[in-house]
Amino acid sequence: MTFTSDVFDVETIELAGTTEHIVRGGRHLFGALPRAFAGVRRIGVLGWGPQGRAQALNLRDSLADTGITVTVGLRPGSSSAADAEAHGFHRADGTLGDWLDVAATSDLVLLLVSDAAQVAHRAEIFAALRPGATLGLSHGFLAGHLANEGLDWPAGISVIAVCPKGMGDSLRRLYRQGADVDGAGINASFAVAADHDGYAVDRALAWSIAIGSPYTFRTTLDDERLSDIVGERAILLGGVHGIVESLYQRYRTAGATPPEAYDRACATVTDPVARTISRAGLRAVRDGLSGPERADFDRAYAASYRPCRDLVEEIYDEVADGNELRSVVLNSRRLARTPLAPVSGSAMWTGERAATGLTDPFTAGVFVAAMVAQVDVLAAHGHPWSEIVNESVIEAVDSLLPYMRARDVSYMVDNCSVTARLGARKWGPRFAAALDQVVYPAADGTPDPAPVDAFLDHPVHDVLARLAPLRPPVDISV
Amino acid sequence: MTFTSDVFDVETIELAGTTEHIVRGGRHLFGALPRAFAGVRRIGVLGWGPQGRAQALNLRDSLADTGITVTVGLRPGSSSAADAEAHGFHRADGTLGDWLDVAATSDLVLLLVSDAAQVAHRAEIFAALRPGATLGLSHGFLAGHLANEGLDWPAGISVIAVCPKGMGDSLRRLYRQGADVDGAGINASFAVAADHDGYAVDRALAWSIAIGSPYTFRTTLDDERLSDIVGERAILLGGVHGIVESLYQRYRTAGATPPEAYDRACATVTDPVARTISRAGLRAVRDGLSGPERADFDRAYAASYRPCRDLVEEIYDEVADGNELRSVVLNSRRLARTPLAPVSGSAMWTGERAATGLTDPFTAGVFVAAMVAQVDVLAAHGHPWSEIVNESVIEAVDSLLPYMRARDVSYMVDNCSVTARLGARKWGPRFAAALDQVVYPAADGTPDPAPVDAFLDHPVHDVLARLAPLRPPVDISV
Repeated sequence: MTFTSDVFDVETIELAGTTEHIVRGGRHLFGALPRAFAGVRRIGVLGWGPQGRAQALNLRDSLADTGITVTVGLRPGSSSAADAEAHGFHRADGTLGDWLDVAATSDLVLLLVSDAAQVAHRAEIFAALRPGATLGLSHGFLAGHLANEGLDWPAGISVIAVCPKGMGDSLRRLYRQGADVDGAGINASFAVAADHDGYAVDRALAWSIAIGSPYTFRTTLDDERLSDIVGERAILLGGVHGIVESLYQRYRTAGATPPEAYDRACATVTDPVARTISRAGLRAVRDGLSGPERADFDRAYAASYRPCRDLVEEIYDEVADGNELRSVVLNSRRLARTPLAPVSGSAMWTGERAATGLTDPFTAGVFVAAMVAQVDVLAAHGHPWSEIVNESVIEAVDSLLPYMRARDVSYMVDNCSVTARLGARKWGPRFAAALDQVVYPAADGTPDPAPVDAFLDHPVHDVLARLAPLRPPVDISV
Repeated sequence: MTFTSDVFDVETIELAGTTEHIVRGGRHLFGALPRAFAGVRRIGVLGWGPQGRAQALNLRDSLADTGITVTVGLRPGSSSAADAEAHGFHRADGTLGDWLDVAATSDLVLLLVSDAAQVAHRAEIFAALRPGATLGLSHGFLAGHLANEGLDWPAGISVIAVCPKGMGDSLRRLYRQGADVDGAGINASFAVAADHDGYAVDRALAWSIAIGSPYTFRTTLDDERLSDIVGERAILLGGVHGIVESLYQRYRTAGATPPEAYDRACATVTDPVARTISRAGLRAVRDGLSGPERADFDRAYAASYRPCRDLVEEIYDEVADGNELRSVVLNSRRLARTPLAPVSGSAMWTGERAATGLTDPFTAGVFVAAMVAQVDVLAAHGHPWSEIVNESVIEAVDSLLPYMRARDVSYMVDNCSVTARLGARKWGPRFAAALDQVVYPAADGTPDPAPVDAFLDHPVHDVLARLAPLRPPVDISV
């Protein structure tokens, strides 16, 4: 995973006994972008979903006055055209066009349409690319699909990926905050799948810096796809969705009013827990508790760790085997006639949520255990530490949970990719069932303390302490 | 799906405008079994799970004094050997042996080991079969696996399936009741995948009659596999598991005590609803209600039908695509190190269950809607009506729900195949989430009455009225 750059400084960092190479971002580097983008005169952004919009806007802002044009390409009849026009991409000046035309006239083509659309239209898009062009992805999904189908990338192009570890809305929001706090943004991984002319790494780094990544680390398309699809099914979306639903029912059944149960089950996660992790790491959540509250945290952690880890392992297997991607393709076909079921119709999200100020250390223990379970599964499968903590911890507390805090679970889940939205609906209920059927009975007894002991000495604490300072301490306000 | 028999009477029946051919069973036909089993001197039953045990015992009883031997084959070191010996299969007299030896020395080899073991050991088993032997399956799982892998059956053998539409324990229990009530038993489908010598149909019919099927209908291995795996994931196991869990939480949250919530959520299904359906069909559940109770049923039915149907469609797609089987194989590998999580640890099953006598028409409406949703999905995919109602209705009310009534959900689920046990754990929580997130909000409003209108005129009512009398009115007492 070593790499070099002719333009940017590559730093070496030690993380829990491993070595990684990273590039820090920041606005002071924008002047070097044209050199790193050598040969790229036009960047075509295909798609206007949350990622497409955020990346097109960030790129245009970062590349202002460089002569590099950012053009948005949409499918014929796309309902997004009006919003793209409203954001300053116009047919009249050639910065908005048909996606295949844009693909054919761009030097760097960022394929940010939905995973299902990538699968359905890959042949047309590949055929449209000019020889020597660079295809950019923000996700390894398409690579996994090609592997499932026994296919390869087209010859004669470069294929790179820059994968921001956060949802599109927060990518744009933190980038704008970056005007005041240099370096604010969403960390990203990059990968190179094909390097036609030897410039792939610098183009990927330029893309990442231009969309505002505080730091960029290297991965492979396989590792990115696995960690990303697992993460969103587990702690990032599906896991936290199921966990808070189940805890809400538990507290309601035990007599809490709806607002009390909401605050204990959900606001505990989105407020003190997420903020503490963002600021001071995972162990700080427990360190901030004492006496019976710490005992509650420990009891919940001890009972939750193993069932959550088993579930994350199952998710990892399903994703690695390709089953989960086949399932997404099947589901996407059904979506043409059956819309996605709402994810926020439950008593928890439709009930009263007047602030009570209550928090619950049991909730904190469950959530932190599920998060560490995901860290451990990704570590056991050999992912780099930067990917592990960005995909398990930083994306949750800096990008996603603020959206659930501000509005509700559907605002968080349904602003993500269709692949993520499907996955959260599929796996969330499994986490809820694991809590109902396995965690609570164990927690009501005397759970084995071994998981808590392992937590106290966990290498993730040092890794977070090393990586957290690489992003400035901004607070996302949704 | 026409077939003829040289030994048994084949009847033609009309079901909702379609024609099916069936063979009635009964003890008066046991004398004809040797003729139908022509050429079979030894039947080898591989495996001693619930199906293996029940079928071996039923076959031995039915074939007493015919000169046809039933031998049980177990894997070396199998922990089931003592139980098989206790049931009268002995190494000393050659009726108990190593599974590959038994496979090599039997004319009809019934492969009743777990799906995962069939997948893991198919090559050895196929290699052990003598030329001209008949391989018998009770499930289309292996056929689906071979199709996934691009493989075929071995040449020179016949391959038949007889698939009882009930769990092994009830197959044995009802067979024994058949000594008093002739014809008591579990209906079965049969299929012929390869007919080496022209006797496949009669051998399958003889096998089905010998294990006590009241009536036997024809299917294909594909249709059987799809309907069986879908059914157990939906209304038979997974669906009912998730539905009663969710309703229990709903009633508890609304203030019901644990025993009250249990009776309203679960005993309603296992007692009045299942008994009424078994005796008088689906519409009789609603016909027995009036006034506000009928309105509650209708409201629940109207709100539940579509979300349940969407979920059964999703399950059907996953099974038909092969994803679900791949998932079972992946899960089975993990089971070697991580046992299945308990399915009865929730508050519902660990709480107090003193009988209150309460029932709930809302529960009845949800359950019947989910059952009809499955009927409609199977009908839309062209399954024969006998298969649809046995796999969606009769198996539930005559075989499975009595076990949940007598003990708990794990006694019902975990006496089924590993494939079924995995599927119930995977899909049950999805049904619970669909109720929590979609059904209850809709039911609390004014749901579209169209599903109830469709229910009143549903063809399934006539089909059940035609098929129910084919089995005697025995009541399974667990």
